Formats: sequence, C-alpha cells, structure tokens
Amino acid sequence: MKKLNGVITAQRFNKSTLETIFAIADTMKAGHFDTQLLRGKTMVSLFYEPSTRTRLSHEMAMLKLGGSVIGTENAREFSSAVKGETLEDTVRIISGYGPDVIVLRYHEKGGAERAQSSSSVPIINAGDGAGQHPTQAILDLYTIKQEFGRIEGLDIALVGDLANGRTVRSLCYFLAKHYPNNRVHLVSPEQTRMGDDVKAYLKKYRVQFSELTELDSILPATDVVYQTRVQKERFVDKLSVYEEVVRAGEKLIITPDTLKRMKSKSIIMHPLPRVNEIDRAIDADPRTAYFRQAQNGLYVRMALLKMIIVGYPNGSN
Amino acid sequence: MKKLNGVITAQRFNKSTLETIFAIADTMKAGHFDTQLLRGKTMVSLFYEPSTRTRLSHEMAMLKLGGSVIGTENAREFSSAVKGETLEDTVRIISGYGPDVIVLRYHEKGGAERAQSSSSVPIINAGDGAGQHPTQAILDLYTIKQEFGRIEGLDIALVGDLANGRTVRSLCYFLAKHYPNNRVHLVSPEQTRMGDDVKAYLKKYRVQFSELTELDSILPATDVVYQTRVQKERFVDKLSVYEEVVRAGEKLIITPDTLKRMKSKSIIMHPLPRVNEIDRAIDADPRTAYFRQAQNGLYVRMALLKMIIVGYPNGSN
Amino acid sequence: MKKLNGVITAQRFNKSTLETIFAIADTMKAGHFDTQLLRGKTMVSLFYEPSTRTRLSHEMAMLKLGGSVIGTENAREFSSAVKGETLEDTVRIISGYGPDVIVLRYHEKGGAERAQSSSSVPIINAGDGAGQHPTQAILDLYTIKQEFGRIEGLDIALVGDLANGRTVRSLCYFLAKHYPNNRVHLVSPEQTRMGDDVKAYLKKYRVQFSELTELDSILPATDVVYQTRVQKERFVDKLSVYEEVVRAGEKLIITPDTLKRMKSKSIIMHPLPRVNEIDRAIDADPRTAYFRQAQNGLYVRMALLKMIIVGYPNGSN
Repeated sequence: MKKLNGVITAQRFNKSTLETIFAIADTMKAGHFDTQLLRGKTMVSLFYEPSTRTRLSHEMAMLKLGGSVIGTENAREFSSAVKGETLEDTVRIISGYGPDVIVLRYHEKGGAERAQSSSSVPIINAGDGAGQHPTQAILDLYTIKQEFGRIEGLDIALVGDLANGRTVRSLCYFLAKHYPNNRVHLVSPEQTRMGDDVKAYLKKYRVQFSELTELDSILPATDVVYQTRVQKERFVDKLSVYEEVVRAGEKLIITPDTLKRMKSKSIIMHPLPRVNEIDRAIDADPRTAYFRQAQNGLYVRMALLKMIIVGYPNGSN
Repeated sequence: MKKLNGVITAQRFNKSTLETIFAIADTMKAGHFDTQLLRGKTMVSLFYEPSTRTRLSHEMAMLKLGGSVIGTENAREFSSAVKGETLEDTVRIISGYGPDVIVLRYHEKGGAERAQSSSSVPIINAGDGAGQHPTQAILDLYTIKQEFGRIEGLDIALVGDLANGRTVRSLCYFLAKHYPNNRVHLVSPEQTRMGDDVKAYLKKYRVQFSELTELDSILPATDVVYQTRVQKERFVDKLSVYEEVVRAGEKLIITPDTLKRMKSKSIIMHPLPRVNEIDRAIDADPRTAYFRQAQNGLYVRMALLKMIIVGYPNGSN
Repeated sequence: MKKLNGVITAQRFNKSTLETIFAIADTMKAGHFDTQLLRGKTMVSLFYEPSTRTRLSHEMAMLKLGGSVIGTENAREFSSAVKGETLEDTVRIISGYGPDVIVLRYHEKGGAERAQSSSSVPIINAGDGAGQHPTQAILDLYTIKQEFGRIEGLDIALVGDLANGRTVRSLCYFLAKHYPNNRVHLVSPEQTRMGDDVKAYLKKYRVQFSELTELDSILPATDVVYQTRVQKERFVDKLSVYEEVVRAGEKLIITPDTLKRMKSKSIIMHPLPRVNEIDRAIDADPRTAYFRQAQNGLYVRMALLKMIIVGYPNGSN
C-alpha cells in the first residue's frame, strides 16, 4: 500500500495514478465502499474564499466514508488572518492539531504549495486564486471517461473565460501530459484568451489545438463542449473590460439552437456555478452532463480521500 | 412503513400526520430513542439567512440520533450565490451529493417549493422570507398540546407583528385546518394586522376570531398569549413605519402586570428571539412557556428527521 | 468520579485540579486515550468573535475523543443577536437543546459568567473580550511544565501589549495563586503596561516582579520569553495610539540577535497569531516553543473535555 501525499497541482499526477483514482471512483459510484472506512479520521476545511459546492462536496465525501469534518467557510474574514497571520503560520498550527487532511481554498495563486510546505499533514488544493483547481480537473477527466468510455480521439471545445478559468487551465495540463490524442479547441472572446503558458504546454506535448472566437464552425464535429463562466470577481477595477467580455461572450451562450447542431453522442460540461452562459431550457436534454459532472466530484473526492488517508495498492495502475 | 417527503408548507400535513409527529416527539422527549438511529445519515444545512437557533436545533436533532451534519450559515453571502447561481442549481447540485435531507432557510417567499422542485432528496423548510416556517408552527402546536393536553376549546391570542410574522401565519393555517374549535384573537398595531389571506382561511374553516389593538380586554379569559417580535428586517426602507409600529406595540409588551391579569393555568409563548416585547422580569413565572417551547423544537425536529429518513408505521395515526 | 463544571475564569481552579489537567493532558499527548470516549456527546461552538485557531482546537479535541460538533463562527453577525437577542437568552435556548458542553467566545468582558448563569450545561470560556482566556492560560502553564519539567524558580518575561492581552493576564493570575516561586518581568511599551488589578494580585501573592520597557537587560537570565501581539482590534478609534505602541514595540521584536543573548535552555512562547513581533527567521531554532505550545492546546482541551463530560477520579491531585 502507498498513500497519496495530498493534491496540490495537476502536473504532479502520472497517468497510472489518474487511472487508479478513476477506478476507485468507479467503486464509490457503484456504492461499493465501507461506510466506516474513515471512522475516527478528521478533515479540516480551510476556505479563504467562498465555495459552497466545492467545500460541501469534499465534506460530504468525508462523511460518506465515516469521517468527521470541522472547518471555516470564510477564513479570510473570520480567522486570525484578519489579525495579520500568514497562511503558513495558520496551516502549521492547524496541521499540528492532527487532522488527517486539510482541504484548502485560497485566494492567491500558489497558496496550496505554500500551505503544503508548512503542513505536517496532506493538503488538498480546492482552488488557489487564478492558479489551479486540480480536483476539479480530475473530476472533469473522470466525467469524460464516464461519458465516452475513453479520453482519446475526442474533439474537446473549452469555451468562455479561458484567461481566468482555473478549471480549463488544469484540464489542459492533464490532457496534454496524459491524454494528448485529442483535439482541443480554445473558444473565447479576444479579451479572455487562454494564457500563453498553457498553450506552450499543449505545444510541448504536441496536442492538436485551435483558437477561435465563435463555436459555430466546430459544433458539428465536437464531442465535448466545456462551457465556463466569466469570472467577474477576477475583473475587480476592470469593470468595463468585464462588460466587453460579457457582450463578446453572448454569442457563445449554449442554447437549444446550439444543441441542434451538435452530435447525438456529444456532451455539454460546465464546472458550475453558471450564470447565463448555458440556457436553462436545455437542462432536460440528455447531452447536458454538468449535473452528472458535479456528482462525479463526490466520487472522485471519496477516492482521493481513501488514497490519501488509507492508501492504495502499490501495483495498481 | 412510509416516509415523510420533506416539510415544505404547513397546509400539506393532515391531522393524522401531525398526531404521529406529536407522538414520536413525545418518545424523543422521554429519551426513548436509538442514539445510533441515523448513523451514516447526513444533513446539509443550507441557510441563506442567519438563524442560529433554528439551524442549531435541526443540527442537534440530527446529532442526537447519530447522524452527521455539514452546511453553510450564510449561503447568500458565501456561496456560489454571489457568483449568480440560482437556488434551483445550488439545490440540484447539493442534493446530487446524496445527503439524506437538506434543511433550507431562504430569504424569499416560495424558496422551499422552488428548492424541492430541483431536489432529489427531501427538503425541510426552515423559513422562507415572509412565507412559511412550518416546523416552528408544528412545535408551537406541540407545545400547546404538551401544556394543555389538548388543542381545542382554548382562547389563543396571537400578538404583535402579525403582518410579517411567519410563525403566527403558519400557526393560523394549522389551527384552521385541523384544530378549528378554538377562539383566535389577532392582537396587533394597526400597521401590522394579520394578512387578509390568513383571515379568509380562518373564515373558510369557521374559526371564531377577533381583531384587536390591545390585550387588556381578553387577558382574563385567554389560555395562550403568543407574543411575537416586530421583524425590523422586514421594514427596510420603511424605518419610520417601523418606529410607529414599535411605539404602537409598547402597550402590548408582556410585563408582570400582564401576568397578574391572566389565569393561573395560562401560558405565554414566543418563537424567540425576543427584543423587549416580553419583560425579562417574568422569566421565572411558571406560565412563561417560551423556553420550554424552544426545547420542544428539538424533539419535534428529531421526530421529523426520523419520519423523513427512517419512516413511520403506515397505520399510525 | 467528579466533573469539572465548565471553565469560566482562571482564578476558579485550585492547584490540584491544574495538576490533574496536566496529568490527563500528558496521557492525551502520549496517545493513550479512547477514541470513542465521547461518542454520542455533542459540543456547540458559539463564537461571537473570529478565532479559527481556538475554535478548531476545541473542535478537534472533541472529534479526537469521538464526539460531535456544531456551532457558529460569527454569532454576532449571523445569529439572532442581530435581531437583538441577549447572550443570556441565546445560551439558555441552546443549552436547552441538550449539548454536553458549550464553547463560548464573546466580545465583552464577563460574557462567560453571564452565559454560565443562563446555561444548564457547562461553558468553556474561549475568551471574553478584554477579560479572560483561561484555557489558553492553562495550556501556557502546561507548556512551561512540559518544557522545563517544573513551574518554579523560573525567570518569566511577559512581553508586548500587556494592557490588552488576555493571555498574559490569565497567566499572571495562575502564576500568582499556584506557582508564586518564579520571577515575573512585565516588559511593555509605556502605553500598554499591565493593568493595576493584575499587579495588585501579583503583590498579594508575593510574586517577585519588575516592570520594564526593554528586554535587553533581562535576556541573559530569562528562561521564558512570552511574546504577545499588539491587539489592533482593541484600539478602535485610537489608531494614533496604536501606531505609537507599534513603534515602541519595535525594540521588543524577537530576532536572531535576541536569541543569541538567551540561554541555551530558554524558550520563546507566543499565544499566536503573530504579526511581526517574532521574526520568522528564528522559527527553526529549537528554543522557539510557540508551535509546540499551540499543539499543547489540543491535549489540554482534550483533558478538559474529558473532565467536564466524563469526569475524573475524586482522589486525583
């Protein structure tokens, strides 16, 4: 048996570990798990930014396996952070209380790495500012695998605020490194194009990709449309840019019309929450995978908690 | 065995179900319950408005029966709601994580119905804006039954901010539909009279009722004085009206003098929190039932959780 | 077996009880405890002021012993307090729900006493405004005992904002009453000298103490330097005084230079959070005891919870 030493960045996982996560998530999804597996084990949720969904999904994963949870839902405002304490001190002290895992959401890039360097227990990065959100990327990959039975030979369109979207950045890293045999379409307003660092990464791993500002031309061949929200909170002091982006993004809204031009076996994904970038009128269409995707987050997080706290077979891949 | 499918509005319950709730609450109050009944079961508290008392009472009910709780205490400010997510999306996602029950406090009327329509698990309505607060109404009825052994032939005065008080509205619905053989006195400042909808409902069920602006005339015959707080938070942008109501309400304050004119077997109820509408000087009088009433909330909520998650005998009434 | 009836003020404990706490904390630290000791027992965390560390430490202590926790992390803003409810009413209602213990952080001096007077269950005072913070004082004493094997014959320097620091005030009470055979140095800027009440208490118990505005002269002989943070939140409307104090406190900052002048067996303590009053450059020095001190908080709180909820042998001292 070996153990995962936390989940900090997307790049750190190799393909074999990913496939193990997916296999264990499958058993969780099938209901084949010991409801007392983590009895007596404890999680601390340390959230410096609001995120009900991500927090509750980790916490529910812990409870389903018999563990316990304590935490704070707005550490930035409520904790000793207001008294000037550094993230490093906070994490060092809390890890000293002996939880089995800390789930951290931080408002600045690199927070998870800084936390891990001060922690005596594993950290799960639940998003660090404009940085990464690796468990979301894992559940995104898991969803594609669940829906298509494979993560290769697919046309995957990442749509919307690619400049600020953590989830699409993390997803690109994973696709590039471990599942490069797909075609990636980066579809965004001019103002929120995917960062050069990610595009360089895609090139390095020879991923076929294109950049577009509209969806129409690629819809008929696309397998996955991964829509994202314009992250208003990243446009502080740039509200006029935000409004431009929203206007430019209007032609990227997924409507019943969009679906008509898509294949019968294709899917729509979204990390949620959505604002108006997906019309609620399509929710009943079986191709809308976003609620299934959110639910997969539970199974992936149950798998990660098992692998971090209990461990997994050495030879597994 | 059958199960309660959540608690959304007061009107949905029939008398037989109410009597079952009261009977199960009695066993909870007597300490006759399995402390591991809900082991492995989970509750999500989703509170869009502050309410420590209501939230902790539901959560403690869950813990007492061996269940686990996660949640958020100010979903409006902290959750994905700030990013523009609808209540329906939030509830659909959270119910997808597989809790056994969601306890919802929402700031707008109709929130619980909207939530239930999107949820795959039962919802307990812990108050929706100026709408309903059915578990409070149930515990109010339960308290009357506990104190008098019956809910009939009583003189019940509902006092204070009847226009905005959820609890008195819900209580009227229950009394009208299932316990119409009582006399109801609606005692309030002119500005906060009971809504016409509720009065029409009382009439429809032929409940004898009167409207007054002072308590004095009815005190000697009254069995229950149900006092309420002026809901300042419902007077946003109408502060001058609020001040008028507070002044008009001054003569409705319950003091040692009020108690002197009441029967020895009568009781004072209040949904709490109170501000100054009940003088603390009377707290030691055995007729003050409000702290017993709050405690009954625990037993009623334990009963409801059992009936929702585990179920109750089919033939029970 | 007898039980502790809560933890309200430092003065209430006798030396025999303190020594019992230390002995039980030792077994907790050694890992010799029943992980199901408090199964089915419940704690309510009622925090009117933010304090992630103190709250999580109590909550983790509860979980480690198998108990459950619910609560609120900012009762002042979120609870019925905003509707005007008194602390007494809130505590009376919550204790009526039947938790086994309430952990209270309150923003005004005397809050814990007021709460206990209205509570049917034991209260642990987790800090009340400028009043006391007794569990911190107990863990401070425990840390000194752990580090030196004794609490006597030591030179103990209390440094920084002595006027507003709850922890140093509580520590003085304990030292005076039960461990008077130490020398205490009160080192602070002129503006934040230790209050006369505490100095009178030290005199009453014949504790040898001095008052200084600089550390240099006492460093070579000092065993314990207990550094504290200037409590900015206590200087509302007095920001210019705050800035003076910070400037005056600059010469009290603990740096690598400070350590050079200290004994090899001495220690640096701090209740944490720290801002800049201890240079992070010394964190790796074995004499920095503050992270060990924070961790001791867990064991002391586990001991207190056991003594409050389960009890401890009558004859123990």
